Amino acid sequence: MIVDIINKKRLGQELSYQELNTIFGGYMAGKVKDYQMSSFLMAVCIQGMTDEETFSLIKIFIESGEILDFSMIPGIKVDKHSTGGIGDKTTLIIAPIVASLGIPVVKMSGRGLGYTGGTIDKLESIPGFQIDLSDSEMIEQVKKIGVAITGQTANLAPMDKLIYALRDVTATVSSVPLIASSIMSKKIAAGADKILIDIKVGNGALLQKMEDAKRLSELVVKIGKYYNREVRTVISDMNIPLGYAIGNRLEVLEAIDVLQGKEKESNLVSLCFDLASEMVSMGKGISKEDARKLVEESVSSLQAYHKFLQLVEEQGGDISDLSIHREKEQILASKDGVIASIDALALGKLSMMLGAGRESKEDSIDYEVGVVLKNHVGSFVTKGTVLAEVYYNKRVDLQSFENIFLIK
Amino acid sequence: MIVDIINKKRLGQELSYQELNTIFGGYMAGKVKDYQMSSFLMAVCIQGMTDEETFSLIKIFIESGEILDFSMIPGIKVDKHSTGGIGDKTTLIIAPIVASLGIPVVKMSGRGLGYTGGTIDKLESIPGFQIDLSDSEMIEQVKKIGVAITGQTANLAPMDKLIYALRDVTATVSSVPLIASSIMSKKIAAGADKILIDIKVGNGALLQKMEDAKRLSELVVKIGKYYNREVRTVISDMNIPLGYAIGNRLEVLEAIDVLQGKEKESNLVSLCFDLASEMVSMGKGISKEDARKLVEESVSSLQAYHKFLQLVEEQGGDISDLSIHREKEQILASKDGVIASIDALALGKLSMMLGAGRESKEDSIDYEVGVVLKNHVGSFVTKGTVLAEVYYNKRVDLQSFENIFLIK
Repeated sequence: MIVDIINKKRLGQELSYQELNTIFGGYMAGKVKDYQMSSFLMAVCIQGMTDEETFSLIKIFIESGEILDFSMIPGIKVDKHSTGGIGDKTTLIIAPIVASLGIPVVKMSGRGLGYTGGTIDKLESIPGFQIDLSDSEMIEQVKKIGVAITGQTANLAPMDKLIYALRDVTATVSSVPLIASSIMSKKIAAGADKILIDIKVGNGALLQKMEDAKRLSELVVKIGKYYNREVRTVISDMNIPLGYAIGNRLEVLEAIDVLQGKEKESNLVSLCFDLASEMVSMGKGISKEDARKLVEESVSSLQAYHKFLQLVEEQGGDISDLSIHREKEQILASKDGVIASIDALALGKLSMMLGAGRESKEDSIDYEVGVVLKNHVGSFVTKGTVLAEVYYNKRVDLQSFENIFLIK
Repeated sequence: MIVDIINKKRLGQELSYQELNTIFGGYMAGKVKDYQMSSFLMAVCIQGMTDEETFSLIKIFIESGEILDFSMIPGIKVDKHSTGGIGDKTTLIIAPIVASLGIPVVKMSGRGLGYTGGTIDKLESIPGFQIDLSDSEMIEQVKKIGVAITGQTANLAPMDKLIYALRDVTATVSSVPLIASSIMSKKIAAGADKILIDIKVGNGALLQKMEDAKRLSELVVKIGKYYNREVRTVISDMNIPLGYAIGNRLEVLEAIDVLQGKEKESNLVSLCFDLASEMVSMGKGISKEDARKLVEESVSSLQAYHKFLQLVEEQGGDISDLSIHREKEQILASKDGVIASIDALALGKLSMMLGAGRESKEDSIDYEVGVVLKNHVGSFVTKGTVLAEVYYNKRVDLQSFENIFLIK
């Protein structure tokens, strides 16, 4: 009985594959009700799951939908997943870098449900960019230019999608085994040979504690072993925003700056180079140091940028006019000092209020609104220095966002 | 925000009255969804509640409905609540005993949702017995004969009723603070001056562990102090059934046997005398030993039995024909030995299958089916001795219930 299974988890006992399948399969079939699933998920959040349970759950998630096969694309397909953060436009930068070095990139990305848009929303801010490729179109494109980025097909681990929507409104998101199951089921179903997971930790991330980030890292590696996929992880800071731009088209513009070598010193550049090097190392079977040299050359020679232009063109996009047609307001420094920190979470909330993210699936996004930081952590500023420019279409009261910048 | 409050409880943090009211009041108003409430309740089950939180929740439960006032009935009103068990017909026996000793008994009882019927179901198995008295009818009857037993008004802590229905299907029943809140809010709203709680512990009870029973006992006493009500508790065993009869009319017949002094030695009689003595001690402000003498006299002199007859007559009942018109099958001993135990939970499940209890609110009860034990724990039996008689209207396969009796 359903209640008996929930009760076992309440008491912290281990469930069999069969029991987990009764709950999750029953939920898909409408026999297990929302209120039973949410009670069960809360028990999982607090009592945890064993590795065996997590392996079972991933199997159940994967088998709820289709399993893609990209084996007809030659080469080792390395996929990357980020647990999400404020100003995270890494995929836009990494995919062309890695592809420019001959490693096939078959990337399925999600829309954002949160403070900012997802990779797909960012790409859609480029006029004409098509994000709905069929499997065969993807394969053809990757064979031709080495890279394709599309939206996730509805039928990839559909159970995970259903569960995620419920977790979001029942405070059952922050569970390491549930997060791992959600990420890994989709990556495995999407046919990746090797997987790199970028785990963000900090106030602007899904996970706030380093300890949880380390547990997630260990768990996804174990899951990879179980499913015979090499998995590496990078744990990165999300207490301050990644790079300078937050907002969809603004982030595309920053990605172009990085690929053109105009932005060199930011935490965004350093993370992108780190992630790209891991992927190239995995894809080519070379050391990370050697991979890093290739990555740096690809950017400095503009190879990566040209791969980006090829990607945009191939998917129907046009970057000839990416200008921002919005009102602009400045946030000024209220005193002299050094910027000690920039609150990523608060910036995320501001970007949501501006219309750059969506609170529910039905919300639409304004691609051109957002925030551009004019100074980052560590900069010396004097009273009146412009800290950030806010692009809006409906005036937002910036008063409550004054504390985003901590000047000491 | 609702999700933030759920999240606090997930992390084991204490909630304020205001936060609890946002969740529970929001649920009553339909703003908090079932799946959010069940996720919250599971967090409470695992993380617990502080005493302060429990006091707040009781206040919220009480204020969700009406508060009854029986102060116009002279004397100290002592109410009793049992956490429920298999063969529990104590109220039918205790109420007349206590009333016969001059202590007013204003008893509101529930229908059973579980393996067997509740007190109200048992009384309804008496032809003609009316269980829907209005408040003023109750008061008049108690003034006249000293006792009245009715069904619970829908408006007594209605929030508790709503929450209980959800707990039942989401494995969130077994929480000491939630059980305490449910019991005490109803008893306080029902206007009791003093309260006796009979806490059952064992495999046929809500609580399986003595440790939980003790925690519940301490908590209800504390709640009583907070609300200025004297509360006493009795912790009693529910690993074996109470008395010999399970099933609604069968239990009425056993209650009459006890009140007529025909059944003297069972665990039922001993518990009834114990509970009645506590109530008389509380009501008269005398020692439990002195109270016990009065209780024994009331039964041996048939005073209590005559009070029972008066109660039945006053509420329209007729006990002249309580015969059972059902098929009968016997359970026989398979070997010689002593009955070491009788599985209360298994007997409960059998009685449910027979139709003596209801699985959902809509189910109807067959008042005449049930089980009568012909031997109890400690009896010597030989192979073929009749252990129990099963009354049914639809043949039940008794094979799977063979192990109810453990003969050693």
